[in-house]
Amino acid sequence: MSILTADIDDPSGYGRIIRDKNDNPTLIREQADATKAEKSIKEIFSGIMVIENKHLKKGVNGLVRSNVKGEYYLTDLVEFSSQRKHNVGTVKADVREVLGANNKEELTELYQSMTNLNLEAASKKGVFFKDPSSCFIEGQLKTGKDVSIGNNVTFKGSVALGDNVSIGSNTLISNSKVGDNTFIKDFSSIEDSKIGSNVEVGPFARLRQGVVLENEAKIGNFVEVKKSKIGEGSKANHHTYLGDANIGKKSNIGAGTITCNYDGNKKHKTKLDDNVFIGSNSSLVAPVRVGKKSYVAAGSVITSDVPPNSLAFGRSKQSTKKNWKKK
Amino acid sequence: MSILTADIDDPSGYGRIIRDKNDNPTLIREQADATKAEKSIKEIFSGIMVIENKHLKKGVNGLVRSNVKGEYYLTDLVEFSSQRKHNVGTVKADVREVLGANNKEELTELYQSMTNLNLEAASKKGVFFKDPSSCFIEGQLKTGKDVSIGNNVTFKGSVALGDNVSIGSNTLISNSKVGDNTFIKDFSSIEDSKIGSNVEVGPFARLRQGVVLENEAKIGNFVEVKKSKIGEGSKANHHTYLGDANIGKKSNIGAGTITCNYDGNKKHKTKLDDNVFIGSNSSLVAPVRVGKKSYVAAGSVITSDVPPNSLAFGRSKQSTKKNWKKK
Amino acid sequence: MSILTADIDDPSGYGRIIRDKNDNPTLIREQADATKAEKSIKEIFSGIMVIENKHLKKGVNGLVRSNVKGEYYLTDLVEFSSQRKHNVGTVKADVREVLGANNKEELTELYQSMTNLNLEAASKKGVFFKDPSSCFIEGQLKTGKDVSIGNNVTFKGSVALGDNVSIGSNTLISNSKVGDNTFIKDFSSIEDSKIGSNVEVGPFARLRQGVVLENEAKIGNFVEVKKSKIGEGSKANHHTYLGDANIGKKSNIGAGTITCNYDGNKKHKTKLDDNVFIGSNSSLVAPVRVGKKSYVAAGSVITSDVPPNSLAFGRSKQSTKKNWKKK
Repeated sequence: MSILTADIDDPSGYGRIIRDKNDNPTLIREQADATKAEKSIKEIFSGIMVIENKHLKKGVNGLVRSNVKGEYYLTDLVEFSSQRKHNVGTVKADVREVLGANNKEELTELYQSMTNLNLEAASKKGVFFKDPSSCFIEGQLKTGKDVSIGNNVTFKGSVALGDNVSIGSNTLISNSKVGDNTFIKDFSSIEDSKIGSNVEVGPFARLRQGVVLENEAKIGNFVEVKKSKIGEGSKANHHTYLGDANIGKKSNIGAGTITCNYDGNKKHKTKLDDNVFIGSNSSLVAPVRVGKKSYVAAGSVITSDVPPNSLAFGRSKQSTKKNWKKK
Repeated sequence: MSILTADIDDPSGYGRIIRDKNDNPTLIREQADATKAEKSIKEIFSGIMVIENKHLKKGVNGLVRSNVKGEYYLTDLVEFSSQRKHNVGTVKADVREVLGANNKEELTELYQSMTNLNLEAASKKGVFFKDPSSCFIEGQLKTGKDVSIGNNVTFKGSVALGDNVSIGSNTLISNSKVGDNTFIKDFSSIEDSKIGSNVEVGPFARLRQGVVLENEAKIGNFVEVKKSKIGEGSKANHHTYLGDANIGKKSNIGAGTITCNYDGNKKHKTKLDDNVFIGSNSSLVAPVRVGKKSYVAAGSVITSDVPPNSLAFGRSKQSTKKNWKKK
Repeated sequence: MSILTADIDDPSGYGRIIRDKNDNPTLIREQADATKAEKSIKEIFSGIMVIENKHLKKGVNGLVRSNVKGEYYLTDLVEFSSQRKHNVGTVKADVREVLGANNKEELTELYQSMTNLNLEAASKKGVFFKDPSSCFIEGQLKTGKDVSIGNNVTFKGSVALGDNVSIGSNTLISNSKVGDNTFIKDFSSIEDSKIGSNVEVGPFARLRQGVVLENEAKIGNFVEVKKSKIGEGSKANHHTYLGDANIGKKSNIGAGTITCNYDGNKKHKTKLDDNVFIGSNSSLVAPVRVGKKSYVAAGSVITSDVPPNSLAFGRSKQSTKKNWKKK
């Protein structure tokens, strides 16, 4: 059998690992049964053991309640094995990996231990943190060279950052991949996205889920993108909602553009080809496609496909009443 | 009379509480007049006392300036009362509740003491904080069971959170009530609002004031709501401004919708009945009402009431110039 | 010559300043050559020296490699000068100003030292910080009286705040000037801007670059302003993009208004005169000008100049299909 142990400054409450003069574990002594000398031992049992099924069965049948509490202790399996000259292996964990929580305050401590371990690992690999104590790495963070991370940044799940990536302050990145030389600006929220190289995102941008930003794309402030692909060099810089959209290369989406992807019943898709220009405050009523090099005038509602190289309007002419007195 | 005292590690500068062998307070000794032994006393006077008017008058008339500074000390009322065998009660406060500030740095310490006291109380009640040191509870926070709070969250005024509420990181909640199972997502700002159960708010949402969100409502990113009621199960998920609006049940407000509540002179109301669908980028020019089960086409400007079960348009037809060459 | 020194708790690795009985520096002893007594000296050489060209040349020619490593040491110039009875001056820096970084973790420490020095200086001048440990002052911060700063605030470059300025939490301010009694609300990002007195900005506002806000202007939530001047008392309170715009006094920009400043080729300017009212969800297609006291109806696309005192429309009439059944 093998048991997972850890060294802890204050071992009170935990079972202590008792070793013989050859440093082999002979038994686990629970708090209530420990002598004063045993209580001073700082190597504790984590609660995790590995044991072969047949040995477990035999050992469990051999348990006796010869302890202060009169209970059967699974931890007595160590003594049982040791007395029968079976190998008992120990693996020592960082104590922060095995601590338990009895209340929410201890859960906070565990949370912070976990994220601090991850932060230390990232720092050791050469990531620059402005203020590591305000950052949280909850899952797996992979990082390239010369990565720089602002204050108050949270990484969740599996996140991979390429070389020379800069993550602004007050950002959240979850289950995403970020390419080389990309800059995620402050106040951005990014989930389940795949971001290319030399991309700029934010500030105040939200990549909600299933987003692909190809190289050199730009997503600016107050822009939400959901289940959409933004092609190489394309831009949506201001106040835009792109949902269920597939956008080609070098297209420009004007401020205030909305993909009307929901008709109250189903979601529909918007397709913009390469080199498209969408004027500001346009509504693209899906399903709809705008052909390459076409231009949609500002403030238009586009309900039918636009062929390539065309200009599409969907707005009224301006009229003016002069000398109109506002009451 | 009763006086409020506190124990403090470094009492220098404060008046010390002198007690007799029966532990009754006999006088308050100011710093300048204290002997070395008296200076070592760590129980200090907070500056707050309660005394009956008639005793106060008599006592104040009896004050003499028999002290190093030659000033009248209000704190001598304790000795005055004690010598006359009047009861002098003491109540001991947590020192953090009574400290004074002589400069802005000490004001910061007081602010942090106050909010830390509140945080400790919330933690003790079983609230989970990801990072309590980055959170601030400035007023009264009431919490149900299994409440979870992200990092960098500020509560102001009186806030009540129901059972199983989750508050995302980087949020501000002021004078509001939040129902059971509701999720306030990251980067949200909520003031003077009443939020039901099973509601989702944010990220990047602002409930400005006088907002009621009924059960199962959803308010999404870059949405501002002011003085409005959003009915059960209704949604405004993206880039919307709802001001002075009353929205029924199960209605859907498309992305980019604006309630035009201000005509440059007065504010007007928008009323949407149940099961209404507002297409994206619509402008609802108040005062206006949309009847139940009606549908407003995307990009419409709605200036007149829409009867129930109707479709309302207020937009131009699309026209396309093919083979248009953009200069 | 003059050398910059500093006192440090752990001097190991640094050259030590050796002084004679008159406290004059006689030489710099590198770590490898230092005796035990010399190693205990806590005054170290920062690596920065000032020396006249002619003395430098003579000194460098006189260097010998009489040290453990057998290298030429520039620091031997101190001994060379001292032996020739030339004056060697020392200036002692705060050690945090001269520390070096050998890895990213040390760079974090230096960053935090720098910003903490600036924070302490600001606190000493009477600025109130809610939580200084979450704030960062990267450059020069000038402050008037009674300035109050929330948690998680970053100042970059040169920033000047007037009297009675309040900076909300979670804000970024870079290279900007803020006038008296102005309130920057939470979640705002401000760069290269000049903000007047009694102005309100935010929450969730972005002043991107080259912005001038005159006195009593208001910029609200989800508003981006770029290279624009907003006149005295003018307001853009919700979901607006103002780019390359020049707005007069007491004008009101409705929610969702977009200045369409880019035609896919060039940027153009929008000019709004005094007392203009722009209805919500309007598109102002630049270059365009709206004359004083004119009114643009909600949802309009404005492509031609509007004369003063006029009402401009650019939208369709509403039509309604009653008893329309939505499939």
